[in-house]
Amino acid sequence: MSMPSWPAGSNAARLDVKRVEELIDARFPQIHSAGRNLVVEEVGFRTARVRMKANPRHIRPGGSISGPSMFSLADFSVYVAIIATLGEHGIDAVTSNLNINFLAKPKPADMTAEVRLIRLGRRLAVGEIELYSEGAPEMVAHAIATYALPVVG
Amino acid sequence: MSMPSWPAGSNAARLDVKRVEELIDARFPQIHSAGRNLVVEEVGFRTARVRMKANPRHIRPGGSISGPSMFSLADFSVYVAIIATLGEHGIDAVTSNLNINFLAKPKPADMTAEVRLIRLGRRLAVGEIELYSEGAPEMVAHAIATYALPVVG
Amino acid sequence: MSMPSWPAGSNAARLDVKRVEELIDARFPQIHSAGRNLVVEEVGFRTARVRMKANPRHIRPGGSISGPSMFSLADFSVYVAIIATLGEHGIDAVTSNLNINFLAKPKPADMTAEVRLIRLGRRLAVGEIELYSEGAPEMVAHAIATYALPVVG
Amino acid sequence: MSMPSWPAGSNAARLDVKRVEELIDARFPQIHSAGRNLVVEEVGFRTARVRMKANPRHIRPGGSISGPSMFSLADFSVYVAIIATLGEHGIDAVTSNLNINFLAKPKPADMTAEVRLIRLGRRLAVGEIELYSEGAPEMVAHAIATYALPVVG
Repeated sequence: MSMPSWPAGSNAARLDVKRVEELIDARFPQIHSAGRNLVVEEVGFRTARVRMKANPRHIRPGGSISGPSMFSLADFSVYVAIIATLGEHGIDAVTSNLNINFLAKPKPADMTAEVRLIRLGRRLAVGEIELYSEGAPEMVAHAIATYALPVVG
Repeated sequence: MSMPSWPAGSNAARLDVKRVEELIDARFPQIHSAGRNLVVEEVGFRTARVRMKANPRHIRPGGSISGPSMFSLADFSVYVAIIATLGEHGIDAVTSNLNINFLAKPKPADMTAEVRLIRLGRRLAVGEIELYSEGAPEMVAHAIATYALPVVG
Repeated sequence: MSMPSWPAGSNAARLDVKRVEELIDARFPQIHSAGRNLVVEEVGFRTARVRMKANPRHIRPGGSISGPSMFSLADFSVYVAIIATLGEHGIDAVTSNLNINFLAKPKPADMTAEVRLIRLGRRLAVGEIELYSEGAPEMVAHAIATYALPVVG
Repeated sequence: MSMPSWPAGSNAARLDVKRVEELIDARFPQIHSAGRNLVVEEVGFRTARVRMKANPRHIRPGGSISGPSMFSLADFSVYVAIIATLGEHGIDAVTSNLNINFLAKPKPADMTAEVRLIRLGRRLAVGEIELYSEGAPEMVAHAIATYALPVVG
């Protein structure tokens, strides 16, 4: 239960937005099979911001965004923060738990996820995610995700 | 915090599989826009079983099922159990929280969700969901979902 | 799913620290049966900060703080924020869900909970809680709690 | 994400009730500082049943059981199932996440936790817990707990 930071000593993102997107595109090309909806806007040490562009596929009757779309955005944005922070090793991280609270009905607009990794141990990373609708100040959903990290050889 | 059962006195599902599917199809026609992947197999008082047919859209590299697909199946199956149990009023229930644990890598096959409502109060329903891969005995994911129920006039 | 803020129009805490503590003491006198360990330090509109004083009862071998103690602090501090924000009606709120992530081993010292209510609907409040050890910058635990709010007559 | 069972090949509890209690008593003697309230009733391969005896300390005004007491019971009972299943190594397992839903108001009586480990990987164990009040058929609380397992040398 000592949970050293990983990698010790570093305090900057290891990869920039372009490199993170290249790695993910190479590994999961199907993510963009219906168009490039998930756009990495910014990464930092233990942080990321990702935009999900409005798309008819995500829109619910009455003009909202579906729960599974918000789940995808939350899950993906933590993955982005992990890869940016850990480097290429992070690509093998897998979600072990995700807990999401739906707080308000989102508008049929772009959504943005703001992520920070509140734990980055040797074996687990925990990310906190806030989801916002473009142009609206209040949070529409909040999630916490735990990723199992690849073992370093 | 008295949490009476809702509706009091009843102990059977109010609607059968056919009627539940009709209600959901009328309300969310876009669910089946890419084909009818989610099939209600059985409903009972506070229970449901739903199948998600294998579909290339859900398959991850290496041949697994994506997290968002499993989230969708879990969320949808609780909704089915609520509608079957409460009747047409249930159609206005909305997810307020979903917590999912990924336990094992699913095979690229049909998945089945088994749901039971472990709380059915006047205002909240809580469903427990077990997800299985066709033909494999071990649970591949487990979820708990809370729905806010429509207020009865 | 419209979720109006409650009470509409207000943007300040309704009660101050002293009044919140009086209400809770009157309702749950047994909280302090072993001494006054939980101290409300600050309340605001949708926020609270609560301190749990170090107490041999909470200390684990090796000098950490027990999980149940952290659960209690997180749960209590959301309750404080609800009462401060809603006023006396809030005293009847009850926890329906609490999800806690343990991030780092806390020191055997005072702990502080920082709460903000990220949803305050008519029926549900959702609070986000960060727990810190006195004198250490990193978060030691993070929680999300949902409270069912009393129905306004 | 291969998640082999741990230890491979075994299909029985490694330790019996008496041995599990001895190990926990030696490691956490303070658990029983106010009397022996948590009693291990039964253990099996990936399962456990633990009783929490009614105690004035846990009783809330109006005669219910406090949330932190239910948290403790849920958390402890997963720990018991892990130690019974893995053997002495399990004593170093630590809780990383616990999600609890309060379903009904418990009576001021003994409570029982029924646990099954729904995942037992090399690094993580996930336990599902059902809490019941003595003499009442309906579940009063439900929890899911993730433990980080000690690394095998």
